[in-house]
Amino acid sequence: MAAEIVNPRSDSKTDAESDAGSDEAFFDPAFALHRGGKMAIQATVPVRDKDDLSLAYTPGVAKVCSAIAEKPELVHDYTWKSQVVAVVTDGTAVLGLGDIGPEASLPVMEGKAILFKQFGGVDAVPIALGTTDADEIVETVVRMAPSFGGVNLEDISAPRCFEIERKLQERLDIPVFHDDQHGTAVVTLAALRNAAKLTNRSLGQLRAVISGAGAAGVAIAKILIEAGIGDVAVCDRKGVVSTDRGDLTDVKREVAGFSNKAGLSGSLEDALAGADVFIGVSGGTVPEEAVAKMAKDSLIFAMANPNPEIHPDVAHKYAAVVATGRSDYPNQINNVLAFPGIFAGALQVRASRISEGMKLAAAEALAAVVADELSADCVIPSPFDERVAPAVTAAVAAAARAEGVARR
Amino acid sequence: MAAEIVNPRSDSKTDAESDAGSDEAFFDPAFALHRGGKMAIQATVPVRDKDDLSLAYTPGVAKVCSAIAEKPELVHDYTWKSQVVAVVTDGTAVLGLGDIGPEASLPVMEGKAILFKQFGGVDAVPIALGTTDADEIVETVVRMAPSFGGVNLEDISAPRCFEIERKLQERLDIPVFHDDQHGTAVVTLAALRNAAKLTNRSLGQLRAVISGAGAAGVAIAKILIEAGIGDVAVCDRKGVVSTDRGDLTDVKREVAGFSNKAGLSGSLEDALAGADVFIGVSGGTVPEEAVAKMAKDSLIFAMANPNPEIHPDVAHKYAAVVATGRSDYPNQINNVLAFPGIFAGALQVRASRISEGMKLAAAEALAAVVADELSADCVIPSPFDERVAPAVTAAVAAAARAEGVARR
Repeated sequence: MAAEIVNPRSDSKTDAESDAGSDEAFFDPAFALHRGGKMAIQATVPVRDKDDLSLAYTPGVAKVCSAIAEKPELVHDYTWKSQVVAVVTDGTAVLGLGDIGPEASLPVMEGKAILFKQFGGVDAVPIALGTTDADEIVETVVRMAPSFGGVNLEDISAPRCFEIERKLQERLDIPVFHDDQHGTAVVTLAALRNAAKLTNRSLGQLRAVISGAGAAGVAIAKILIEAGIGDVAVCDRKGVVSTDRGDLTDVKREVAGFSNKAGLSGSLEDALAGADVFIGVSGGTVPEEAVAKMAKDSLIFAMANPNPEIHPDVAHKYAAVVATGRSDYPNQINNVLAFPGIFAGALQVRASRISEGMKLAAAEALAAVVADELSADCVIPSPFDERVAPAVTAAVAAAARAEGVARR
Repeated sequence: MAAEIVNPRSDSKTDAESDAGSDEAFFDPAFALHRGGKMAIQATVPVRDKDDLSLAYTPGVAKVCSAIAEKPELVHDYTWKSQVVAVVTDGTAVLGLGDIGPEASLPVMEGKAILFKQFGGVDAVPIALGTTDADEIVETVVRMAPSFGGVNLEDISAPRCFEIERKLQERLDIPVFHDDQHGTAVVTLAALRNAAKLTNRSLGQLRAVISGAGAAGVAIAKILIEAGIGDVAVCDRKGVVSTDRGDLTDVKREVAGFSNKAGLSGSLEDALAGADVFIGVSGGTVPEEAVAKMAKDSLIFAMANPNPEIHPDVAHKYAAVVATGRSDYPNQINNVLAFPGIFAGALQVRASRISEGMKLAAAEALAAVVADELSADCVIPSPFDERVAPAVTAAVAAAARAEGVARR
């Protein structure tokens, strides 16, 4: 039986409308919907009488505690640990809004949590932290970890997000997954696989240019290389991230090392000349002249929100396939296609981490859902396609088993 | 509409029965009930289609985030923060089991969370921490605090629990409440008020002896003095906590300073001679000879679980009123009578803390629920008396307003 959707606080009239201090807040459907938050705790066992209480709480609970103390892995069977993910942020890179702090980030984290539930059946708890220090974030999450089956890092700015994820992965034996990196990368790869297939090419025949060397750009570059792309160049505001530059951060130096086989340098526009694929995760605008110089049958994924780097109307003049981050155009690259199933699969088999193989498997499964419906306007399924989460979950669980990171 | 009780994981057959490694686990109703945990997240807004998604998540959520970033107090209106309490433990003093660690404590924390929901309508999230260092616990909770409307400390051993609570109260502007201290104290005071009333005495006419100088004993001593008890002596294993002892911890030295007006010293049995009230929060057994020497119409609250310090059959030979911590005897001193309403009231008015006045008001309201039903077997309501939580909630909210700690 699915959880019923009900807002227990919808009738709690507060003085918040006047607090909101604007008529806009009063009449705006987004504010109305967010009133009182978007989530609640639900008991899954009854506490109707003394007998219920003595089973669910003392004295009955004591023997369950003792059993876990004796055999720690039983925590997965007799608590919600293996079912619940912490959605952790420090509020530094929220949507396109930037560093708005932990409290202001909570509506997004709650939104994420209900998407975890709705699409993956995974419980998730927003944990917005009052620190932006990487080591403090790591310590905090490590200390909370006994209560959770996984950690979804969210909206933490680069380059700290890389360090935080790496350190947490080193210290924890539960999945730690920065969705802005890997969720985006998995969905992008899935769409690109289908776009390549539609235009009768293999990934190995494609040269891609990524605009943006933040969390998403770096992760997309990595997964494309793992998936066998012909070549990929990553560009930041100063142009191609290449080994001849002296101004690179540690992470960008790493990117320069594993990408850009062709040894390009110069501007994004220079790199786009003759390129097969454009992937935008940066914002800004790419001039039409540069788009016009891309190779025939180009694939344009302009994913900045709400303003794609290349407007779809412009992109369609040159490209065989156009994808964006927007829901009002075809081919929306939406992380919700990936993270619920990835965590559901990882938790199902109690994976100790989310390996590269699990991410690649998620992308393959996601691409495969499209199957016969493949067309220029359908290289990726709709977020509401009910086949998606089960397919991704199963593929991720199977990959975890195959890679030896599953614990059941 | 109340949340429906449903276990979405009850049909997820796992190999956990065999994991449990014993036939007992398979057949025991407590293990069966705890399978998969006792709680889940519930979305309170719909995410059925693209339009829902664009309101609950991007792009609609962005304006809610921006509004909070501009006016931080709006976080209370547009997220679940003001509705959700962190149930924080380090697993060092769990039930009678002691230091069993964070994972093994989780079934209790989940139980606590569902009691919060069931009895107070308050959402609560178990946070079992992987550290027992007081400063680390404080830092961790401070960093998590932006996500929560309150902190319920639970099953943290003394004396660290005192320091942790004090430091958190100093650093946070949300209620921090160590239930093992104050929940127990509030319910004990409520029952004692009614027991005094039943035997036609004021609290000022009573001399009490508390067995146990841990979290509960210290907090009970404090609240009894605030409520105007005639005198109270606190005993630890070595006898009365008195200023002439050289072996006291900081907290016990403080207790010695504010209690024991009579200047008693010596053993618990010595202190009990002529005392009106016995309050046991220690375990162990009090010899019947000592009970026999208490004053006429004595009030015996032997709250150790599962074995009261004085067996009710023995206590009834001497006492006018007998209370225990057990649900199978009359007058159960059960924290669930207090904490849900205390937090519900504090959250309702967005109290910055839970003041002494709010705790005293909670005890008064709880005592008053008994009203005409007052008898030797009914000095405290049943946990399932539906009048309890609303009465406590209203009293605590009113006291917060009166004391100036309410923020709405």
